[in-house]
Amino acid sequence: MTLAAEQPRVAAWLGRLAAIGADPPGITRHAFDDRENAAHALAIEDAERLGLEVTRDAAANLYLTWPGQDRAAPRVMLGSHFDSVRHGGNFDGAAGVLAALAAVSALRAAGFAPRADITIAAFRCEEAVWFGLGLIGSRAALGILPPDALDRRRADTGMTLAEHIARCGGDPSAIAPGRRLLPEGPIRCFLEAHIEQAPSLLEAGLPLAICTGIPGNIRHAAIRIVGEDAHVGLPRRFRRDAALAGAELFAALDALWAAEDAAGRAMALTVGRFHTDTAKHELTVVAGDFTLSLDLRAYDAAHLAALEQRLHGIVSDVAARRGVTIDLGPRNAAPVGPCDATLQRELAEAAARLGIATMPLGSPASHDAANFAAAGIPTGLLLIRNAHGSHNPHEAMDTPDLMAAASVFSEWLRVEA
Amino acid sequence: MTLAAEQPRVAAWLGRLAAIGADPPGITRHAFDDRENAAHALAIEDAERLGLEVTRDAAANLYLTWPGQDRAAPRVMLGSHFDSVRHGGNFDGAAGVLAALAAVSALRAAGFAPRADITIAAFRCEEAVWFGLGLIGSRAALGILPPDALDRRRADTGMTLAEHIARCGGDPSAIAPGRRLLPEGPIRCFLEAHIEQAPSLLEAGLPLAICTGIPGNIRHAAIRIVGEDAHVGLPRRFRRDAALAGAELFAALDALWAAEDAAGRAMALTVGRFHTDTAKHELTVVAGDFTLSLDLRAYDAAHLAALEQRLHGIVSDVAARRGVTIDLGPRNAAPVGPCDATLQRELAEAAARLGIATMPLGSPASHDAANFAAAGIPTGLLLIRNAHGSHNPHEAMDTPDLMAAASVFSEWLRVEA
Repeated sequence: MTLAAEQPRVAAWLGRLAAIGADPPGITRHAFDDRENAAHALAIEDAERLGLEVTRDAAANLYLTWPGQDRAAPRVMLGSHFDSVRHGGNFDGAAGVLAALAAVSALRAAGFAPRADITIAAFRCEEAVWFGLGLIGSRAALGILPPDALDRRRADTGMTLAEHIARCGGDPSAIAPGRRLLPEGPIRCFLEAHIEQAPSLLEAGLPLAICTGIPGNIRHAAIRIVGEDAHVGLPRRFRRDAALAGAELFAALDALWAAEDAAGRAMALTVGRFHTDTAKHELTVVAGDFTLSLDLRAYDAAHLAALEQRLHGIVSDVAARRGVTIDLGPRNAAPVGPCDATLQRELAEAAARLGIATMPLGSPASHDAANFAAAGIPTGLLLIRNAHGSHNPHEAMDTPDLMAAASVFSEWLRVEA
Repeated sequence: MTLAAEQPRVAAWLGRLAAIGADPPGITRHAFDDRENAAHALAIEDAERLGLEVTRDAAANLYLTWPGQDRAAPRVMLGSHFDSVRHGGNFDGAAGVLAALAAVSALRAAGFAPRADITIAAFRCEEAVWFGLGLIGSRAALGILPPDALDRRRADTGMTLAEHIARCGGDPSAIAPGRRLLPEGPIRCFLEAHIEQAPSLLEAGLPLAICTGIPGNIRHAAIRIVGEDAHVGLPRRFRRDAALAGAELFAALDALWAAEDAAGRAMALTVGRFHTDTAKHELTVVAGDFTLSLDLRAYDAAHLAALEQRLHGIVSDVAARRGVTIDLGPRNAAPVGPCDATLQRELAEAAARLGIATMPLGSPASHDAANFAAAGIPTGLLLIRNAHGSHNPHEAMDTPDLMAAASVFSEWLRVEA
């Protein structure tokens, strides 16, 4: 079915959302702050227009439910998040909630009556800005929030995550490992739409991709290389240059990525922090100390494990060749989030019925959907064409592409829900 | 002639000097502070024992002169500096003044009478710790101090270089470009002894090297690479990773050095500062901004110029390949300081007559002697075996190696002065 009638309302909605978050340059809707709450209020206003049930869980996540004919039947969930990074864009997260609401709105207008409940979620604190951890709301909802997370403090407010949740009407004492906070009853599947955070769809000239998987990652936030501080005149053969070892390590990892790319094995690696000790480094001193971060991601658990082995081999080689020690430091990992094969096929078929061209694509980034996939709930993810990436003021999604995602959701719901 | 009789006094002198500078770990004798002044007082005490004339110039440099039989004949100068970096070692600089004093002491004890004046200099502020510039005392003495240097302020004291010089009895108003402050009359040559700041002599098992040249350098204190901040999930082909461009640049420069080394063309390059923006870099953001410093040095002006051309070629290649801009920023250069060929031969022959084995060696670092060489004054430099480099508490020179340098000076003076 077509969602042409919904587009003006969605466009107006996006404008109101941008006004709420306006913080030049770009948009700021930090988790648990008044602007995120205002976005939630906007969603509730739309839910009331549509006659949806409005509930919150103990983590202050928002659920908008369209009751089905059989309320005990496995629920279809859709959704994403409203929070943003500081000076981010208007679409990262919000687009997914709006697509789901527009799909429900169109189905309601068409007189559709779902067999099972359809619940639209707006999760809190998806962005890893404040607590050293992302996807917090959906983790809490699924009972997989690390136990220490509630006690972490935001540097700016000095308040803990628990206090922020309580301030937004949640009940942190009810958040516990293994305890699901989602609406009661079985869940049939989780569907999310999210702007693509890379320009692959732009390059391909397509509005939508059917996500084939959400990458798992291995993270080392602070890899430390120790060589020896030395005088600028020290001949090359005597040097134990930690910064040069860092350069060689990064170049070797990039060469590994290039080879994997050439072999068609999708992955990504990012060295975002890459630095000598800025408190003591000098123009005329060979650096004996160097620090870098590493985020290594892939879509298949075995591939990710193989890449980690390669990482260890490269680290050993560089350390031996440059006479330095390389300490990988603490390791964090997130499991791969496989997208359900049946849902991929059904979403692609729904798009095809509407004449919307799609392509399969691995998600560049992690999303709330990854937690559902990791929890064993069949998960589908639509990626929406977007220029300039995300987490910056220059995100650029065209509303018709958002409507394409909403249309695919409504078509899938029409047939399946 | 042998300097065996001088060694106990020199060893005691080194002990008193270490006590003056004691600042665990290591030694601190900052330029113009009370400890550098105390070292000067120690030298004056020794000069008075030897009956030398004690004078200072307008830059507060110290000169100790043994009058020659013909006071108008071209003067032989020897010397180095007493100042150190913070928590440095006892020998960087001081060894050269002590070697000259011990040589004069031995010659005097042997009844030698020099034909021309012999002047031992202790220059101020050789270390580039405080004013963004090294070799300050010898530059001032030769009339080649950059005009703005006198107004530069030390971050800790808030005082200008001019104020520091005045505090030590100098007269900054008399310091000017083109105006020499050295003792009056022609200068035949300048001789310096300095600990080696690399372990080449240790590796070779020799106490002394006859320096073949002091490197010139080209310095870029802040090379800026600008790419584009991007999301951790951005595929490789879209990235404009400034940190990776930095890594590739450093690796390419190191490969250039390795090739030059293999071809026997002595040079050095140091990237001491090498960093993402630590105020904003993130584990999950591709770095769009990167900064590095570069010190590039060689012994021959044409070689240095050729290396700079290679640098520009490498920078262009990396910028094009990685889709970044690379701005080399301000450039500073110091000319090469060629060591006089006749002096090299004479010093080597003097050593050989004493049974002291030496080898030719390019100086790893710059020294006060470089200013004399650049000023066209025939210059000789002895490098003394030393472990653990310099500018750190672990400098390790054995006193007999210092006595070998003093012996070569006294033997050269005996024949030539």
